[in-house]
Amino acid sequence: MLVNGKEYRTIWMEGSCVFMIDQNELPFSFRIVQAQTYTDTCHAIKSMMVRGAGAIGAAAAFAMAQAYMQAPKKGKEEFLRSARYAIENTRPTARNLFYAVERVAGAGSASTEKAVIEAQEIADEDARDSREIGKHGNKLISDGYTIATHCNAGWLAFVDFGTALSPVYHAHREGKKIFVYADETRPRGQGARLTAWELYQAGIPHKIIPDNATASLMAQGKIDLMIVGADRIAANGDVANKIGTMEKAIAAKYFGVPFYVAAPRSTIDTACPAGKDIEIEERSEDEVLYQKGTDREGHMREILVCSPGSHACNPAFDVTPAELISGIITEKGIITAGEKDIHRLFEQ
Amino acid sequence: MLVNGKEYRTIWMEGSCVFMIDQNELPFSFRIVQAQTYTDTCHAIKSMMVRGAGAIGAAAAFAMAQAYMQAPKKGKEEFLRSARYAIENTRPTARNLFYAVERVAGAGSASTEKAVIEAQEIADEDARDSREIGKHGNKLISDGYTIATHCNAGWLAFVDFGTALSPVYHAHREGKKIFVYADETRPRGQGARLTAWELYQAGIPHKIIPDNATASLMAQGKIDLMIVGADRIAANGDVANKIGTMEKAIAAKYFGVPFYVAAPRSTIDTACPAGKDIEIEERSEDEVLYQKGTDREGHMREILVCSPGSHACNPAFDVTPAELISGIITEKGIITAGEKDIHRLFEQ
Repeated sequence: MLVNGKEYRTIWMEGSCVFMIDQNELPFSFRIVQAQTYTDTCHAIKSMMVRGAGAIGAAAAFAMAQAYMQAPKKGKEEFLRSARYAIENTRPTARNLFYAVERVAGAGSASTEKAVIEAQEIADEDARDSREIGKHGNKLISDGYTIATHCNAGWLAFVDFGTALSPVYHAHREGKKIFVYADETRPRGQGARLTAWELYQAGIPHKIIPDNATASLMAQGKIDLMIVGADRIAANGDVANKIGTMEKAIAAKYFGVPFYVAAPRSTIDTACPAGKDIEIEERSEDEVLYQKGTDREGHMREILVCSPGSHACNPAFDVTPAELISGIITEKGIITAGEKDIHRLFEQ
Repeated sequence: MLVNGKEYRTIWMEGSCVFMIDQNELPFSFRIVQAQTYTDTCHAIKSMMVRGAGAIGAAAAFAMAQAYMQAPKKGKEEFLRSARYAIENTRPTARNLFYAVERVAGAGSASTEKAVIEAQEIADEDARDSREIGKHGNKLISDGYTIATHCNAGWLAFVDFGTALSPVYHAHREGKKIFVYADETRPRGQGARLTAWELYQAGIPHKIIPDNATASLMAQGKIDLMIVGADRIAANGDVANKIGTMEKAIAAKYFGVPFYVAAPRSTIDTACPAGKDIEIEERSEDEVLYQKGTDREGHMREILVCSPGSHACNPAFDVTPAELISGIITEKGIITAGEKDIHRLFEQ
């Protein structure tokens, strides 16, 4: 996707070197990081220079390929075992990471070259799936539409194109006149920071809104369609995603605004029967109590924005019941968020 | 109410001097401001040292009483006319302000002493109404309840006790074991700053939550009751209040959580037939783009928290349809948010 008018992927590998956009610096500065070794790439994953399901999967694949390239002839197995362990422990809750490492290790058992090809293929697949999601989702967007989104499910969370934003990019490329409202997405502000940054770079008209304002804009008929991403989709169509997603879905249902979830099939966990089986992660209260940003001189600062002495509650995501979801946009087409359709998706 | 263990009102008058808590400094420091003249009090209203419907009404009443005390014998009428004009222009959209000034001026036509008594009476009435709201609202609170609230409709917005928080204080004083979730209330953070500060000072167990988390806590059965304030209530029971109120009301309805609005009768605008007749004020985008708070050294700082170059949309309030409201808690008792009950309220 475009940054300052030039095409980029979130992460890519050239020779034995992995390049990525440092997402810790965004949106305040744009910097490309080089990871020369698998250890460097592990560090980048761990420190969240790269984040988002798809991008983490690609990073892990590249790291494993780097390990094959670095492995000494003597003690190769031991080196690879230790590398794999290190990669898998960077973000142990990211499902894509294990899947990617497994695939590269499988190919690597034939040759290092095969491991590298497999890693590149994983990244390419991710970009391809995202592009397909955009193609399918674009059918929901009419000329003149205003689309709302929550959090960041844009290309920064994947290798390219993204999920929730991919239909938006597709519609924009086709010349449709569209406008996007980006929920700021407290407490971490991924909407205000990453989604807004992506849309600004792509030249798509947009505004950031406080999370509190979405229902009000829906009530005024100012939102035609809402699309969000997903962290995990249960077999019955319930969707775990960034905190606030459910509140938007309930409001969308109340006002009759179509509410879609965009995600590759890999996000669907058929082993998880329903949303109630998904545990809700509680994160540090400091994310609510403090805010990071730049002062007038451009220096990064962290300030306390809450009453001193009070504590905060910070659930990382919520689970939206399937009945509130108009449909799921996947790389294979748009399906209803129901058991049958989800099952059928894996029979193709 | 209690601050550092001592009883305070938001604003009060002793002799010819008006004292008030400087709400621009809260929650980071607690400071009492003295306004010696009506001009000083006007400045305090204008610069929002004092804010909230009830507190502004009392401030305006005290300012008008100060004007009577300051008025020279010669040119008295001219002095009072000019003072009244200045007071009315501090916050020209605050309805209570005009009502208060009118009452004090009416009493002042008899004597300056009467003007002062009337101003004190206006402040006392406000505190009394708030206390009555607490008494009635308390009936909704069972021992062990967790109550959610949005924005700040606590004692800082009135002379004492507040509206949405008054039942909470009453229940706490009665010894009921309660817990409060305070929505942070982006963009201005009145929940995270003022409500949390009030609850902390009162020793009431509470946590600040991102606005995005309310529905999720409701889904988990963690909220028994939600009470909010109101900026204006239409004759049909629709309620204009801080942006985000409607989103919480929709979620409360979806999960079957009782959702109450607490407000004195003076908030009901019987001349306004329905919510659709209320214009939604759009405030500066800077309130969304920037955040104020204290750094680690305790210095106040303002930082950019959004992607540079992007713009924001900042509607100040929304209008919750009457059908989503379980009831309105007034100083005269709890009524349903319907035309008939509201009408009856003014016949008493």
